[in-house]
Amino acid sequence: MSVENDFLVGLRRIATDSGARGLMDDVAVLGDLVLTHDMIVEGVHFLPEDRPADVAWKLVAVNLSDLAAKGAAPVGILAGTGLTRDAAWNAAFVDGLGEATRAMGVPLLGGDTVVMPDGAPRTFGLTAIGRVTAAPPSRIGAAPGDVLYVVGVIGDAGLGLEIATGKRQGPEALLNAYHRPMPLLESGRLLAGHVTAMMDVSDGLLIDAQRLADASGAGVLIDLDAMPMSAEAMAFGSDRAARLRAASAGDDYALLFTASLPPPQVADRVTRIGQIVRGSGLQLVDADGSVPLPEKLGWLHN
Amino acid sequence: MSVENDFLVGLRRIATDSGARGLMDDVAVLGDLVLTHDMIVEGVHFLPEDRPADVAWKLVAVNLSDLAAKGAAPVGILAGTGLTRDAAWNAAFVDGLGEATRAMGVPLLGGDTVVMPDGAPRTFGLTAIGRVTAAPPSRIGAAPGDVLYVVGVIGDAGLGLEIATGKRQGPEALLNAYHRPMPLLESGRLLAGHVTAMMDVSDGLLIDAQRLADASGAGVLIDLDAMPMSAEAMAFGSDRAARLRAASAGDDYALLFTASLPPPQVADRVTRIGQIVRGSGLQLVDADGSVPLPEKLGWLHN
Repeated sequence: MSVENDFLVGLRRIATDSGARGLMDDVAVLGDLVLTHDMIVEGVHFLPEDRPADVAWKLVAVNLSDLAAKGAAPVGILAGTGLTRDAAWNAAFVDGLGEATRAMGVPLLGGDTVVMPDGAPRTFGLTAIGRVTAAPPSRIGAAPGDVLYVVGVIGDAGLGLEIATGKRQGPEALLNAYHRPMPLLESGRLLAGHVTAMMDVSDGLLIDAQRLADASGAGVLIDLDAMPMSAEAMAFGSDRAARLRAASAGDDYALLFTASLPPPQVADRVTRIGQIVRGSGLQLVDADGSVPLPEKLGWLHN
Repeated sequence: MSVENDFLVGLRRIATDSGARGLMDDVAVLGDLVLTHDMIVEGVHFLPEDRPADVAWKLVAVNLSDLAAKGAAPVGILAGTGLTRDAAWNAAFVDGLGEATRAMGVPLLGGDTVVMPDGAPRTFGLTAIGRVTAAPPSRIGAAPGDVLYVVGVIGDAGLGLEIATGKRQGPEALLNAYHRPMPLLESGRLLAGHVTAMMDVSDGLLIDAQRLADASGAGVLIDLDAMPMSAEAMAFGSDRAARLRAASAGDDYALLFTASLPPPQVADRVTRIGQIVRGSGLQLVDADGSVPLPEKLGWLHN
């Protein structure tokens, strides 16, 4: 088990309040509010050479994506910022935070600022608060027979990371998908009342689908050919290998949900990609039949 | 200006929502909820040799102390934990977090766990959410003529730090005041409706009183002889030098408030220590007359 999992097991013994949802979900529930807190650390979740405005954007986006998956409208954020003494970097980070909060329509309400010890990585935490009008979907509600859907496209951010790190050349749109993910707030809000389970895809479609199925005590079958990819991503290939690469890459911030009835139309692209089945685990198929699972189903930080 | 102040000036340009209170206060306000977020970093806010359970306790206590100063009842916390791979330390931290949440009566609702890069300091952030039944006091409401009060005692934690770092020998009670501060939640709640301004004393009585006066656009006069000290602290001296040392030491998590009418009795000791006056800045007096301000009014992390 990883350090995080060991720790989580310990925390679950403490977090007995119903609002904690057993720490099995991405948010806490407090009346009609949902709250989420994610940390990002330099050298782990972002690169020292990343632009500070992009880091700020991502800090806000990853947390609002959790709200999107709960059908919550963002009402505010609190930012914990562990900085270095690089004044130019810090100023650019503030500008990026302003840009992100305006673009995503969420006010900055407070937080804390500290200077990290010399040589320590920049470390950020963000708490996002959202309001729901109905019980927020969890990741545990899927049942065999439910259909599995994706909102948005899969694989753009993974290619964007390869472009950012110089492994590939490619268009701005893919780079942007990696640096400037836009949480699917409006679609999440409109879909929330129609799903049996919903979560965001942050670490990779395959690993996140397996997590949803595991949490629901069921198995999941995905048709790799049905997985939605952008035209920009498909320009780099759409064969089985390319699709597996996309399905196991992280940072897309698409939404993944299950439903027992056809969902309503929303602004973002909604694609049926599979089915919840009895049993456990993940099965992959495409037009050529059963697809062996790749060694890594997604992005694990450890 | 410090790195933190520069950054805060930038953040204030973004934080235009009324709930942010211009980032001038210690909490954000969202309906009947108040929210606060504080970070603590190894080597800055706590020592690598501090016991993990004490670090966990302090993380919760410093945030709940901000809620106490707003008269809020704690309803939940979200913990962001940046750990190392030291499993024994992590397990002891979880135990301490459990102990703190039970002692302070606040449920753990969620959060995030990450592993810091090798060699990086442990870094924690905590968001505390509290509920108020009336408008929470701020630190900007004091007016000339208001009386200045302290809830609790001043100086115990400063002596406790000296004991913890081997500079002094002393009783457990003082060490405990440093390692296990108890936020004055009940007193804060009962007093909140009767104050013109209130904040907690985290960095030192003198610096925090000056901040309250500055924020209120007034001056403040403190009678050093009136400052409440514990019997344990007075055993180390209660002359002017000892009192100045106590008044400029941090980590007490007492409450500081102003009122225009005598406040109600509460369980914790409430002591009248001075007055809000016209003008600006801090003046100190004792039985021997005017007291020159010490060079450092309190604990600054930079």
